[in-house]
This record gives sequence, C-alpha cells and structure tokens, in this order.
Amino acid sequence: MSHPSSAHSEDNVPRSPSHFVSMDRLNQRLAVMSSYGATPKGGVNRQALTAEDLQAQLQLIRWGAELGMLPSSDPAGNLFLRREGADPSLEPVLSGSHLDSQPTGGRFDGVYGVLAALEAVNAIRDAGLNPRRSIEIVSWMNEEGSRFAPGMMGSTAYANPGSLSEMLPVKDADGVSVRDALSFIHGGLQEIPRRPLGGRPHAYIEAHIEQGPLLEQQNAAVGVVSGIQGKRTFQVEIIGEAAHAGTSPRSERKDAMLAAVRIIGALATRLHDGADVVKFTVGRLTVEPNAPSVVANRVVFSIDLRHPNSAELTSLGDLIGPLCASNAGPCRVSLTELSNAASLEFPEAIRDGIRAIAGRLKIAHLDVLSFAGHDARHLHKICPSGMIFVPSRDGITHNEAEYTSKEDLTDGARVLADMLGELSS
Amino acid sequence: MSHPSSAHSEDNVPRSPSHFVSMDRLNQRLAVMSSYGATPKGGVNRQALTAEDLQAQLQLIRWGAELGMLPSSDPAGNLFLRREGADPSLEPVLSGSHLDSQPTGGRFDGVYGVLAALEAVNAIRDAGLNPRRSIEIVSWMNEEGSRFAPGMMGSTAYANPGSLSEMLPVKDADGVSVRDALSFIHGGLQEIPRRPLGGRPHAYIEAHIEQGPLLEQQNAAVGVVSGIQGKRTFQVEIIGEAAHAGTSPRSERKDAMLAAVRIIGALATRLHDGADVVKFTVGRLTVEPNAPSVVANRVVFSIDLRHPNSAELTSLGDLIGPLCASNAGPCRVSLTELSNAASLEFPEAIRDGIRAIAGRLKIAHLDVLSFAGHDARHLHKICPSGMIFVPSRDGITHNEAEYTSKEDLTDGARVLADMLGELSS
Repeated sequence: MSHPSSAHSEDNVPRSPSHFVSMDRLNQRLAVMSSYGATPKGGVNRQALTAEDLQAQLQLIRWGAELGMLPSSDPAGNLFLRREGADPSLEPVLSGSHLDSQPTGGRFDGVYGVLAALEAVNAIRDAGLNPRRSIEIVSWMNEEGSRFAPGMMGSTAYANPGSLSEMLPVKDADGVSVRDALSFIHGGLQEIPRRPLGGRPHAYIEAHIEQGPLLEQQNAAVGVVSGIQGKRTFQVEIIGEAAHAGTSPRSERKDAMLAAVRIIGALATRLHDGADVVKFTVGRLTVEPNAPSVVANRVVFSIDLRHPNSAELTSLGDLIGPLCASNAGPCRVSLTELSNAASLEFPEAIRDGIRAIAGRLKIAHLDVLSFAGHDARHLHKICPSGMIFVPSRDGITHNEAEYTSKEDLTDGARVLADMLGELSS
Repeated sequence: MSHPSSAHSEDNVPRSPSHFVSMDRLNQRLAVMSSYGATPKGGVNRQALTAEDLQAQLQLIRWGAELGMLPSSDPAGNLFLRREGADPSLEPVLSGSHLDSQPTGGRFDGVYGVLAALEAVNAIRDAGLNPRRSIEIVSWMNEEGSRFAPGMMGSTAYANPGSLSEMLPVKDADGVSVRDALSFIHGGLQEIPRRPLGGRPHAYIEAHIEQGPLLEQQNAAVGVVSGIQGKRTFQVEIIGEAAHAGTSPRSERKDAMLAAVRIIGALATRLHDGADVVKFTVGRLTVEPNAPSVVANRVVFSIDLRHPNSAELTSLGDLIGPLCASNAGPCRVSLTELSNAASLEFPEAIRDGIRAIAGRLKIAHLDVLSFAGHDARHLHKICPSGMIFVPSRDGITHNEAEYTSKEDLTDGARVLADMLGELSS
C-alpha cells in the first residue's frame, strides 16, 4: 500500500482515515512491541504488571507523545492515551485491547488491538481530521489472567470500580499481590498523570485476532463480531493427606493427586459432546508438596468452561460440583466459581457500522462469534461496544506460533480507523 | 531412666553402652535439630544442601566436637564424624542416616538415625570404653530426593564414586544444580577437612523410624529390619500443543493435561491389587504453561512404584511404558526410568546381632521388612549392613505429624549403642 501524501483525492473529496493507515508503520510497531518479553521461539512472555509489561507501556506512551496524545493511568493499572477532540466535553470514543500476554503467548493477541487503535489515530491525524469527540486508546490491565486469576481485571474494574478492592489481594504463584504489582507499575509510570477509575465512553471498539480458524477458512480478512461466547471459570481444591510412597497402604491413603485425576477424567467424559461445541479446559494444576515419594496432600486446579448457548453453559457448569463430590474418594474437595459470564450480543448499530465500512473498503468480511473472552465483554455493560477480528493462521493462539499476515492486520486497522473516525465525528 | 555415674555395676561387671544412653539428651538434641527448617505445623522443611541443611550439619559438628569427634566432608556432600579407635588402621564401623527432609517432613525421618548414632558414641564414651575400631557417624547427602531427584545421592556416590558425575548436573525446580548446591555446602563447611569419596566400612548400621504401622500394632519398640522393598522410579513427559481454551475445538487439541489424566488413571486402575501390596504413587506433576485459559502443551510427572517381590516389581514396572503409549491420545509421551532397585535382604549375622541385643535388653522387638528405601540399600553393596527401626505413630511419615515416643526412640538408640559397641570391639 502506498503512503499517500495528500488528505484529499484528485477530485478534492476528503479521504477517509483508512486511506492513511500504513501497513509498514503498523507492523514495525508490532515488531518493536514483540521485543518486550520476547521468547526464544518467537513468541512473547509479557505477563500483567511485570517489568516487560511496563516496558511495553512506556513504549506506547512514547509513540502516543509523537502524535500529541496525553497519557494517563488509573488505579487499576489501565493505561490511556487521549487525542483531544474539538469538543473535549463530549464523552470520548474508546478503543484498544491489552498489552499483557500468556506465559508462552504470541505476538498479536491483545497488542494488535492497542496498536491498531494507535494506527487509527495516526491515520485520522494524517487525514487532517479534527473530530468533535476525543479518542482514547486503552491498554487494559491483566486481560489474560495467567499471572493473576481471573483475567480482564482492568476492564472489569473500569466498568465496575467497586470491584477493584476484591482484586487487590489476589496473588500470583510467587505470592506477589495485585496490590504490590500495581505499585510496581505505578512507580514506573510516576511521570504520567493518574486519572480516576471508570468512565462512560461514547462507544468502545476493540480490534483483535480471531484466535480461531473461521476467517481463514472463509477467506475473509475481517470479522464483524456478533457477540462473545459465555464462560464459567472455577477453582477446585482437593485436600488429602501427605504420606510415604513406600510405606502407606493404598487403602489408607488420601491421595489428592488420584482424586484430581478421577475428577478431571470424569469431567472430561461427561462434558464430551459429539458436536464439539463445549470447550472444557484444565490448564492449571498445582500439587503439594510435589515430591516424587510423597503422596500429595493438596491439589488445586482450574476449570475453564465455555459454550455459546447461555442456558447450556449454565446446566453444564452446574454438573461440576456433583462430579467433584462423587469422585473425591477419601479426600475433601471444594469448588469455587471464579467467574460466570453469559453469552452476549453486541448492539446491531455497531455491527452494522463495522460491516458497512468493510463493504465500502471492499474488504472480504464475515459475521463471527467470539469464542474467546475479551475486555469488550465488560465495556458492553457501560457503552455501545463492538469488535473487529482479523484471521489467525490455523486458528493457533495462546501459542508462540500465533500468526496473522501483514495484509490482514492492515485491513483490520483500516476498518477500525474509519469506524473511530465516524464515531468521533 | 536414671543417668548412671559409674561405668561398672555393683558387682563390678562393666556396664554395656546401652546403659549410658540418655533419653533426655537424645530428645533434647532431636528438639534442637527440629528447629532448623521448622515449619509452622511442627514439622521440618530441611531439604538437601539448603541453608537449613547446612545449619543442621554445623550443629552436628559442634556436638561431635564436644565428644572429641573429628568432622570431615566428602565431594558428594556427605558429612562424617569420627571417633578414633584403639587401632586406627582398622576399617571403621559406620552408622548414621540423613539430615535432609521432605518439604513438609517430620521431626524424626533421617535425623533420628544420625542422632541415635551420636547418642551411641556418647554412651560408649561414657561407659569408658575404647574400642579397637573407629566409629564414624555419617549424614548422607540428599536421601529424600525431593529437591534433587532421585534420592540417596550421597550413599549411592559413596558406594560407587563413579556415579557422582551423573548427579552433578541434576537441577532443582529453581534451576540450581547439585554441583552449585554442593559448592554452597562446602563453602559453609570450609573449616573442616575434606576426605576422598568412598570407603569400605567394617559394617554399617542405620537406625530409622519405621514409617509404617507394624511395630505400633504389635507393641514392639524395636524392629529388626529383614530387608528393603524394591522400588522403580520413572519420569513421564507428555508433549501436547498450547491452544486457547475458548477457541480451539476439542477434536483438534493436543491437551497434555488430559493425556496425563488418562495415563495416571489407567496406571492406577491396572496397578490396583486387592491385597494392597503394590505401592503406586504420582507425587510430583508439573504443567506448562500452567495457565487457566491455555491448553497445556507439556506435563511432566513422577512415578514411584514399589513391591517387596522383585519379580513382581519388574513385571508391574514393565506395564508402564505400554500404558503410557496407549493412553497418550494425540500427544507424544516419553518414559524415563530413573532408578530400579530390586528387593534386598540384610545379612543374617547382622540381623541376629541386633535381635540378640534387643532380647538381652528385654526390649520387645519384631522382624520387619522396610517398605521405604534407605541409604542402607547402597551400603549393603559394599559392607555387612543392617537397620534398626523404631515405631511411627499411626504409620504417619513424610508428614509434619510424624511422631515416635521418647521411650521408643531411646530403646532404638540403646540397641544401636550395644551393636556399635560389639562391632567396634
């Protein structure tokens, strides 16, 4: 794509912001960002509120400054860059995603939505536009939930400021609390203004990789996201009794490991559906004391359960408690539900807007459901929200091999740029 | 028990060392040792080659010095205290056990055997005896194998010095190697002489808690150990593929967690014996990336398999490979055997000696098999070896609730004192 030098076409009609989106600039910024927490296998490990996360945020602030954007951070560790509108009193248009990654994450999940928003603002500026509404770019704190569970803490707190106090005591595997990790981040950002938690944006648009195979299979460059699949998350704690692996008879053991194996096995069997719609994952499991010759006295594991049908999600999730109890054997088991989000549908007006822009730009597009959760879930509660997807090669994500072509990334940013241009006008 | 002031009875017959064993002194030393690595629940966390282990070794050296014993350490991190005999050219009688513990271990496992040997030397000294042979007390490095796997590294290296080189690169969960941890310990022990690795003792006697319920059930204070149950240990590595918990369809997943659950479940079922003789334990399991919303791409777990019949142990252990392969599903699985020790029987002369002393002292005793592995397994290869057990309340061990009464601990030390007295004369 050429980088046009004029904000008007030959017949002097103002060019839309999408015309000024630069594939090179967008992908160069993505490459720079992927250096913060880079892994040997070409992915990133940039977990929430770490030094790598801070480096990425500081880089974003520098790029924003080049565009005259004003940074600010809120008490939940969300970072904002604001391009002031002609009427600063109007509610801003908000766009972004997250800079944190999974421990062995890819180079696009989250960061793409932040940099696509930056590219959109860059393009609006290059188009010579001065919209009425301010545009704010946001990087939400801890979307992934891998360091601190559950995820989407920043957007949850933004939509419901009262919820922050419950997050602050949550600890990571090393015993560091969200409170302490936020102090670390705010220490690194002390030069920039602090803003109050929360807000009422005019609208929120989030660009993101699809993290599934549908767009690629259908040869579409952009997905108009219809909604987000529901999700329930749980933590199971099994208390057994430590014993010697050589001396304690099986019949007298309270083996927390074998209880966990029975419970997970029973859940996998019961939640197995022929249509392959249910998503059931035990991604995290820790054992105590975790020594080869000691019967485990405690096992804690996570359950991530998703289904696009809210009623089905509810009934499947409600099976978990009884299955835990009936497979615990001589151990004690306790189940805690960490989150319960029904399936949601984004407002039709937002989806229509995205679809119309993609059509006008002659970008092949498709309506898709998001099978992954996103921060837009929480913004949806407080303002008209929507999402723009770009394809994920082979549907691979949460994996260092995550990949989206430069062209697709650019097409998503072009749709976003025009959408933000329209919403802010 | 009174603390006699004379080494001779009223009719001027020399009293045996057992007469000078002090219940108070033995239990006070055990209490002091349990302060190194003390846990809030009354157990100890004194894993091999840690600062706590070093503190315990320095304490042992101080007590030995009070008895005129000469300390030395070898390249494998074994610590020795020597009471010189009348003829220092004779092979020494060796006795001891280990000071390291499980992460949530008890106050008696290992440390009792070291302090019972110290008490025995103290009693021999108090009896005014000057045996022909030297007596050496030993604390073997890393018996437990919880920090560095497998266990019994120190006694293995002592019996077979060539094996040390294979142990040095083994790393703990934090990436610290045995080599580095040995440097740490030797740094802390730099004031004491270094001795070469290996030796050919005249005999080796190890006192230890039973770690099983038989002695308690039979009201015996001392167990004459007939032999040690065989043990095979394995590591299973499962390689899957990281994927997003919300987007990746079950049919396309390579879920290392579910493969581990299937394999462990199949092993538990297949190794289940009605007679409850087989001991099968998966005590350690680690998951990567261990994040709630990421399908696990790697799971590694331990297998500890024991059976008193060597042929049965062999055939059961050989089932593991095929069961791993047939339950791996879409994942790759690899099985590594870490150790394979057949069941063994201690020499009859040693067992007869222990039994005779217990009878003479009118201490209720019983012949028992050791279901746990011990350093004596490796000493058995190079010299006549045997073990003396004392009861474990409720058979509980590898657990902070481990308990043996002061009286039983003392009876075990009395038998040991006379046995070391006889062997060194």
